[in-house]
Amino acid sequence: MNDGRPPFGRRIGIDVGGTKALGVALDEDGRIVAERRRPTPRGADSLPALVDVLVELAIELGEVDSLGIGVPGLVTRDGVLRAAPNLDGVADFEVGPLLAERLGHPVSVDNDGTCAAVAEWQLGAAKGEDDVLLVTLGTGIGGGLIASGSVQRGLNGFAGEFGHMVVDPNGPRCPCGRRGCWERYASGSGLAMLAREAATGHRLHAVVDHAGGDPQNVRGEHVMAAAMDGDDEALEVIDEFGRWVALGLSNLTNALDPAVIVLGGGLAAGAELYLGPIVRWFRELLYQPHLRPVPRVEFAEWGPRAGAVGAALLPSVRDASTAG
Amino acid sequence: MNDGRPPFGRRIGIDVGGTKALGVALDEDGRIVAERRRPTPRGADSLPALVDVLVELAIELGEVDSLGIGVPGLVTRDGVLRAAPNLDGVADFEVGPLLAERLGHPVSVDNDGTCAAVAEWQLGAAKGEDDVLLVTLGTGIGGGLIASGSVQRGLNGFAGEFGHMVVDPNGPRCPCGRRGCWERYASGSGLAMLAREAATGHRLHAVVDHAGGDPQNVRGEHVMAAAMDGDDEALEVIDEFGRWVALGLSNLTNALDPAVIVLGGGLAAGAELYLGPIVRWFRELLYQPHLRPVPRVEFAEWGPRAGAVGAALLPSVRDASTAG
Repeated sequence: MNDGRPPFGRRIGIDVGGTKALGVALDEDGRIVAERRRPTPRGADSLPALVDVLVELAIELGEVDSLGIGVPGLVTRDGVLRAAPNLDGVADFEVGPLLAERLGHPVSVDNDGTCAAVAEWQLGAAKGEDDVLLVTLGTGIGGGLIASGSVQRGLNGFAGEFGHMVVDPNGPRCPCGRRGCWERYASGSGLAMLAREAATGHRLHAVVDHAGGDPQNVRGEHVMAAAMDGDDEALEVIDEFGRWVALGLSNLTNALDPAVIVLGGGLAAGAELYLGPIVRWFRELLYQPHLRPVPRVEFAEWGPRAGAVGAALLPSVRDASTAG
Repeated sequence: MNDGRPPFGRRIGIDVGGTKALGVALDEDGRIVAERRRPTPRGADSLPALVDVLVELAIELGEVDSLGIGVPGLVTRDGVLRAAPNLDGVADFEVGPLLAERLGHPVSVDNDGTCAAVAEWQLGAAKGEDDVLLVTLGTGIGGGLIASGSVQRGLNGFAGEFGHMVVDPNGPRCPCGRRGCWERYASGSGLAMLAREAATGHRLHAVVDHAGGDPQNVRGEHVMAAAMDGDDEALEVIDEFGRWVALGLSNLTNALDPAVIVLGGGLAAGAELYLGPIVRWFRELLYQPHLRPVPRVEFAEWGPRAGAVGAALLPSVRDASTAG
């Protein structure tokens, strides 16, 4: 079903994150042949500086046959970043049009989750599949969606915003204004919240020790460190975390029936720790598991480079009408 | 984007429900020119009788250029109904292959929710849109999904099973084995449950009167009847019901970013009563509503005929590889 895509040329992709922008150049076979990193400019008036950084990265990475950019937030179909909670002072950023003007050729822009989905679908854990979900488990939850062998963007380009699926209407308040969004539980912040809850009443000593002794300072990395040491209480928190991740994956599977679910984002660094609980709970929570093969659940092969690699592949997988 | 579909010929569609099978014939312009109904055979050995009924309906409806069948349950991509909770004694029913053999031509088969989605997308409330969600609010919740101008079925053909999205992991037990599935709240049975809860402690008198005096007998139709009379307590229950419907619609909108959401199924009979609360809560719960047009939410134009009409259109909207 993946017909009509041209063979890879030399392609540049840049993934803009909250702290750094990562650029890669891919050769014809989709291998990374160059890589550059720059701090993401921050602050209220950082937009012109960010454009400069992106232009410099693109030029530094060599002659450009095509350029794709992944950005964190809601990206319209014509390449405008409408809102980016993790980029100070960035809203209604016309990434695509602005860069196209500076560089003199079209630039493809999409959400970073969609970029990661493209990388794993074209050249990673979901290669050869037509129905793919990618879910990034980072500070929040993002995602991307391939269905019937096509990247799905929805009417506005906002498809794949899985993190704000409400999974408990009486749950903790979310900055988005609602309660019990999936990313309150199943992200890095969610893991920290579950751990802080578990730490009340003088429990979870090993984790609290890793956090310097104050339960309120517990972050996901402290749970992970204690779990790596084999601490049972930390492993229980990770099991509970795995159940929340699996709950959302099971909801998305009901809607979309994917062949494979790829997990990316910051928590992928502890893949071997999280995958077991997530897969066990996913099998437990899947609807009608006796009537279907259980979808594969895997961590992103491209790891932290999935966004940049997918950005580089964007121009070859999307229809011409959406190029910036 | 809806290219490549042939103009309508004379098409037969049959929607198999728990109590009746409804067949329609459409003319070239997609108008219903004939309609037939038969009771759905029930009981442990009803399968051969069901096949006979479907063959008879098809023949009775005239010369067949093409035939499509909608069935309630999980339908594989090659036209096998794997499980059908509302059809006694029906499992692993090879609808497509069996009917094709009896009739001597290919027969397309899909889930009834997908059929309804096709009807509303091709000839109804979602005409001209590329990204469409159809949600049936009946005894349970079913659905169908159009994305980027294509019917989406997922790997196994099971996409669109929206009813078993968990929206409250501590909610009431669902027959599927889990807790807090969306259809526990946002279906006809859900409305009845919300009403029975509200009726405890001698409240909800008007609704309980409609149910013959026993709170445990309250069903959705009793809430509707009292609400039609203007009873405030019944209207409150419908408002709460509307919030649960909207919660799931908002979750699906985050994932899929549709242009329009079409509501079908039995509750569509009270569309004017339900639409206001559903739309009000949907606007309230939508993620980032200031950055996007609010998706339209409408009841199915084809009402109870959406499944049969969509079944008739199936052969022209699906790829040849999936014909039974």
